[in-house]
Amino acid sequence: VFAFIDAIAASKSALVIIVDDGGFESSVYGNTVVKTPALQSLANRGLTFDNAFTVVSSCSSSRASLLSGLPPHQNGMYGLHQDQHHFNCFEKVQSISRILRKHKIATGIIGKKHVGPEKVFPFDYAETEETRSTLQVGRNITFMKELVQEFLDQYQHKNFLLYIGFHDTHREHPSRGFGPFCEKFGNGEPGMGTIKDWTPQEFSPDQVIVPYFVPDTPAARADLAAQYTTISRMDAGVGLFLAEFQRRGLLNQTLVVFTSDNGIPFPSGRTNLYDPGMREPLIISNPREPSSFGKRTGALASTLDLVPTLLDWFNVTYPSYHLAKKRKVVLTGQSLLPLTESKPPKERVLFGSQTLHEISMYYPMRMARTHRFKLIRNLNHRSPFPIDQDFYLSPTFQDLLNRSQSHAATGWYKNIHDYYYRPQYELFDVISDPKETKNLAEDKGYAKVFQKLKFQLHNWMNATSDLWLCAPDFILEYTPTTAIKRLEETM
Amino acid sequence: VFAFIDAIAASKSALVIIVDDGGFESSVYGNTVVKTPALQSLANRGLTFDNAFTVVSSCSSSRASLLSGLPPHQNGMYGLHQDQHHFNCFEKVQSISRILRKHKIATGIIGKKHVGPEKVFPFDYAETEETRSTLQVGRNITFMKELVQEFLDQYQHKNFLLYIGFHDTHREHPSRGFGPFCEKFGNGEPGMGTIKDWTPQEFSPDQVIVPYFVPDTPAARADLAAQYTTISRMDAGVGLFLAEFQRRGLLNQTLVVFTSDNGIPFPSGRTNLYDPGMREPLIISNPREPSSFGKRTGALASTLDLVPTLLDWFNVTYPSYHLAKKRKVVLTGQSLLPLTESKPPKERVLFGSQTLHEISMYYPMRMARTHRFKLIRNLNHRSPFPIDQDFYLSPTFQDLLNRSQSHAATGWYKNIHDYYYRPQYELFDVISDPKETKNLAEDKGYAKVFQKLKFQLHNWMNATSDLWLCAPDFILEYTPTTAIKRLEETM
Ligand SMILES: [Ca+2]
Ligand SMILES: [Ca+2]
Ligand SMILES: [Mg+2]
Ligand SMILES: [Mg+2]
Repeated sequence: VFAFIDAIAASKSALVIIVDDGGFESSVYGNTVVKTPALQSLANRGLTFDNAFTVVSSCSSSRASLLSGLPPHQNGMYGLHQDQHHFNCFEKVQSISRILRKHKIATGIIGKKHVGPEKVFPFDYAETEETRSTLQVGRNITFMKELVQEFLDQYQHKNFLLYIGFHDTHREHPSRGFGPFCEKFGNGEPGMGTIKDWTPQEFSPDQVIVPYFVPDTPAARADLAAQYTTISRMDAGVGLFLAEFQRRGLLNQTLVVFTSDNGIPFPSGRTNLYDPGMREPLIISNPREPSSFGKRTGALASTLDLVPTLLDWFNVTYPSYHLAKKRKVVLTGQSLLPLTESKPPKERVLFGSQTLHEISMYYPMRMARTHRFKLIRNLNHRSPFPIDQDFYLSPTFQDLLNRSQSHAATGWYKNIHDYYYRPQYELFDVISDPKETKNLAEDKGYAKVFQKLKFQLHNWMNATSDLWLCAPDFILEYTPTTAIKRLEETM
Repeated sequence: VFAFIDAIAASKSALVIIVDDGGFESSVYGNTVVKTPALQSLANRGLTFDNAFTVVSSCSSSRASLLSGLPPHQNGMYGLHQDQHHFNCFEKVQSISRILRKHKIATGIIGKKHVGPEKVFPFDYAETEETRSTLQVGRNITFMKELVQEFLDQYQHKNFLLYIGFHDTHREHPSRGFGPFCEKFGNGEPGMGTIKDWTPQEFSPDQVIVPYFVPDTPAARADLAAQYTTISRMDAGVGLFLAEFQRRGLLNQTLVVFTSDNGIPFPSGRTNLYDPGMREPLIISNPREPSSFGKRTGALASTLDLVPTLLDWFNVTYPSYHLAKKRKVVLTGQSLLPLTESKPPKERVLFGSQTLHEISMYYPMRMARTHRFKLIRNLNHRSPFPIDQDFYLSPTFQDLLNRSQSHAATGWYKNIHDYYYRPQYELFDVISDPKETKNLAEDKGYAKVFQKLKFQLHNWMNATSDLWLCAPDFILEYTPTTAIKRLEETM
């Protein structure tokens, strides 16, 4: 009996599932309309996080950060990887798959990869948008299940990491004809194809729960209803993968992580450092800690914690190496496993760093947040906040623009002018003001909080070799002979 | 006799020499202080251009454009290649070396490369900063001469292109201890080493000719004097290379091109689309057209013309391929060989496109210019114009900042506030106002000129798949169903 247990204990695997642009529309987070039974069953054998955040609200940057444990300004993925945006990590970055491979742990990726270069993100098994249709590997859950089976057939007898990237619940370009969230893809209607394991669920715009940051308009409700359908498809996919792991007896050796890369693609969401862009669903199932099953935690967690968590799980040490300035790279995230072991959370500060999304969307922002306060620094604040093509084209935003232009009621908690033009510093008390509408940066009563967070942010930027450390008013260059001057001082 | 001439005619080679941050401080362009006998002898057997311009005033972007014939927004080299800036061309870009290799023409590069990826810029022979010290391959003219010999030993019996990139006359980081322009490197002083073929020339600050765009201050004069020394080193190097070609009997089969990547690193110079940043020395020696020897032309020429010129010289057709939007790539430059054949210049418009320099220096600008008028569009005009580290640290700029801060006389033709904050559109009559100090963009008398240049610029941006076509006030996205709105209209 002991030998058998030892054998199980000696085998370790991890399954990381990333939903694309996914938010809190799920049973696990209290949404009563869109049902997510698979995520619920995962939560029933895992720990659910109520204060998990990405480090950047942009797809490639977030995935590169999640897979490297380094923020985008440090790993080089300053913006989107694909097409003319063309960002790539620095070649020396040690990603989790690169590290694990060196330790003879098998690695697989299925679905959306969206990062590069290949050298930094090697996988033993890869079925991604690089060689397949994005829709097939990221939204066809039956096909994805078959790929999972293929991977497991080859690697389940080794220690392994399997990373699955849904393309659900991302928007789709209108020209594709699959609906705004690709919700019709595989639904059996003429020209839409079928997905064998999926019974499409439709939602009416009246039904949806409109989050506070989305305008309560028919256009936005229709958008949300479409997204709900893709959430149900994604959830069904999660169910298929977990069933496959269970069928093969792998669940008890597998650390399962479910999260998203960035907030939902609505105003204040994706591409923003406001909570709707940064807050992420996160469920971690640690099979060795049944006492955590079905529990929730309010501890702060970051997607930068995933690499330390996986290294902890596999008992692998982070390698010693250098990137910019020949300074040793140090992970600033921390393992989340102690939280699954009922250890009390430590006091901490989370950080955020966004620089671009599309190459023409230069709007560097940096963030520091505690449980109670959040500081955002908008470095290019003199220019308008840039809107990505995907969101710009959405019925929600087009309707918001039309209403703003004709001075009609927008049904929205902000106005478009202030959304475009942001102050350099934004400080929010996210406990008393969770919608982040009252900027306290100029409030003298919060001067100490403001200074402290600025200081902590500066230190983190420095520790992570942030080229924007002195932007926009200083030049980043340290020499004993040169006084660095504020822009205004020189005029 | 005819057979002998035919044999010569059948062998073709090209030598392209790029000086780094080089300007008009040379005998060829009327400078009487710094002597450049080698350039003068090249001009004596070539055509000298008085209106040649780069397409972008930034090192990697310019070199990538020069080598690909495509502007940086089209080739993907939006900014600097090295370190954390990390820009690279799109993998499909067909550069001149990639094209020539397919036609079995040997290619060599010696000195500063500063572009990537390798796949886009393959050379049969390469001795660059990627494998050697930049100083050795870019400033040690004796070592560079030996590399030229090595290349010729291997390839001179084939048709070939040899590309030589000086690192002279670029600034050097103060911490290196070789002086602000690395002018002491190899001068025989203690710790400086020697360069066998170089007899250093020193210049006193009193001697130098201060161009109109440089503050006439002791600091700037000292900077210029240091740069003069590196100009004389570079010129001596050109002399060595040409002598080597002559010694081997190659001059009569070799098209020689001498130019620079961007303007000198002084205010309004490098990183600017003003003439001091964009105007380049250009000498083309076409050995088949002795009638052009020693002549000058006022015809407009662009570094985008180099690829068409080299293809023309080698009788090679530009390949048919696609980049963004599956649109066939078309070169917008034109061969300069007809000008060496005394053909009259055609009426044309030159274009410019700068997006970043360092990754944190996002300041997209686009330019159209004719002989008489120049239009600059500053897309991120709400933000201050960014200053690069190299220039920021220079004695010239530090002194200018100090003087501005203390409200002392700056000796400069502009003021620092207007230098940082630029209008969205700048229109200059560069004939009557060569210093570009009088913006005519709002002058109703020039409304037609303004409209025409805007239209021509828009067409060029469109033809070259410029992602910034609609920036900063529109979103770049064409669909029949979506009205594109100006930012202001939606507020
Ligand atoms: Ca995403
Ligand atoms: Ca240069
Ligand atoms: Mg995305
Ligand atoms: Mg440079």
